[in-house]
Amino acid sequence: MLESYPKDLGGIDRDKLAECIAACFECAQVCTACADACLSEDTVADLTKCIRTNLDCADICATTGRALSRHTGYDANLTRAFLEACATACQACGDECTQHAEMHEHCRICAEACRRCEEACRALVGAL
Amino acid sequence: MLESYPKDLGGIDRDKLAECIAACFECAQVCTACADACLSEDTVADLTKCIRTNLDCADICATTGRALSRHTGYDANLTRAFLEACATACQACGDECTQHAEMHEHCRICAEACRRCEEACRALVGAL
Amino acid sequence: MLESYPKDLGGIDRDKLAECIAACFECAQVCTACADACLSEDTVADLTKCIRTNLDCADICATTGRALSRHTGYDANLTRAFLEACATACQACGDECTQHAEMHEHCRICAEACRRCEEACRALVGAL
Amino acid sequence: MLESYPKDLGGIDRDKLAECIAACFECAQVCTACADACLSEDTVADLTKCIRTNLDCADICATTGRALSRHTGYDANLTRAFLEACATACQACGDECTQHAEMHEHCRICAEACRRCEEACRALVGAL
Repeated sequence: MLESYPKDLGGIDRDKLAECIAACFECAQVCTACADACLSEDTVADLTKCIRTNLDCADICATTGRALSRHTGYDANLTRAFLEACATACQACGDECTQHAEMHEHCRICAEACRRCEEACRALVGAL
Repeated sequence: MLESYPKDLGGIDRDKLAECIAACFECAQVCTACADACLSEDTVADLTKCIRTNLDCADICATTGRALSRHTGYDANLTRAFLEACATACQACGDECTQHAEMHEHCRICAEACRRCEEACRALVGAL
Repeated sequence: MLESYPKDLGGIDRDKLAECIAACFECAQVCTACADACLSEDTVADLTKCIRTNLDCADICATTGRALSRHTGYDANLTRAFLEACATACQACGDECTQHAEMHEHCRICAEACRRCEEACRALVGAL
Repeated sequence: MLESYPKDLGGIDRDKLAECIAACFECAQVCTACADACLSEDTVADLTKCIRTNLDCADICATTGRALSRHTGYDANLTRAFLEACATACQACGDECTQHAEMHEHCRICAEACRRCEEACRALVGAL
């Protein structure tokens, strides 16, 4: 879709942008599924902080993925604010899921998706 | 992620479910980007209905993709309601984008994503 | 905001529309908060279906509230599809929360918000 | 709903929190409607940056309103990140809408909602 955008992308790095959009949407899906998988574990009472962080992370990843899909009236200041909030949430969720990664495969997969998304957000901030 | 879900998926067709989740998230991204690309066309005044339909379709695809990522307390009646609304929106958006597909590459790509998502939703409804 | 819309609203009942938009946004907030309150109950293991239904209902209410806030290129068929999915989710979530309403004040409040939103959606469908 | 939360709110100022949640959901609705009203103006070609900023602001306000509705596993660092991104978007959208406030009543109303939400976010950050 990036190549079909009719105007200039405002000087943003096209590869890093494409990677970050994909990482945000993937992380939004995986965090939503991880929250639900935690909810179905017998040990759900020990996973409530993980579920909450998953839900926050899913929401900010979806919002950031959508904002990055818009190029009209590009404002680097706004893009940076979204990316920083998203990286912070991915870091928090990645840390939380890592603690349960040996017990729960969904947390292991989710921690990896969070790390990829956090790195993609930080790489794009660095390239703004 | 589907294979790491700790309980039974409630008899839903796993392949059709996975395909539909992927189609919903893809369509949500493409519709968001198509709305913005339309906004940057010189002929934006002729594309306002397309932009609106894109935004509706992006929202229901995101909501449906998230709902399908949850399996706890599965309720076929609820899943069907989401899938039918999503298929209706994808059909409307696919029809609208098809009208501009020869002029605008983003509308052509978006129409295809809408068709894929509509079909995936209808296939999953048929398998509930 | 409805009165500042620059074009015609397409013959939709303005009062029912305004009421339904407000009910959708309120229900989205209350369901999000109820899911989290359930998550913090000591009996969270008995509330997992409630949490899941809350999350689905929050998502479709948000999507429907947004779609109803758009009037450009109005399509009654699409509006009806969103409203029906939203009413179905509100009914399911209202039923589920009602079962816990005597134990948990947040479920009692949430069941009421779901009933209001379900009724507002059905009233608007009837007026399309 | 805040009073029905079964655990402690983590020392966050309850009044500022309630005000900020309400401001976020209101701003999400108003920005969604303003984007659509701009889309229906005859001068839509002059309002494309406004529409884009409206859509970003609607998304981050919805995400922040949802995150603030969750109290389980409270993490001040994460809350601050969301609030700062939301305040930045509200400021950008408020500035943009203010430029069209004399021409378009929806932009005037939207600029006010953005200011209220920006202030509520900054007040809550200051109280964390």
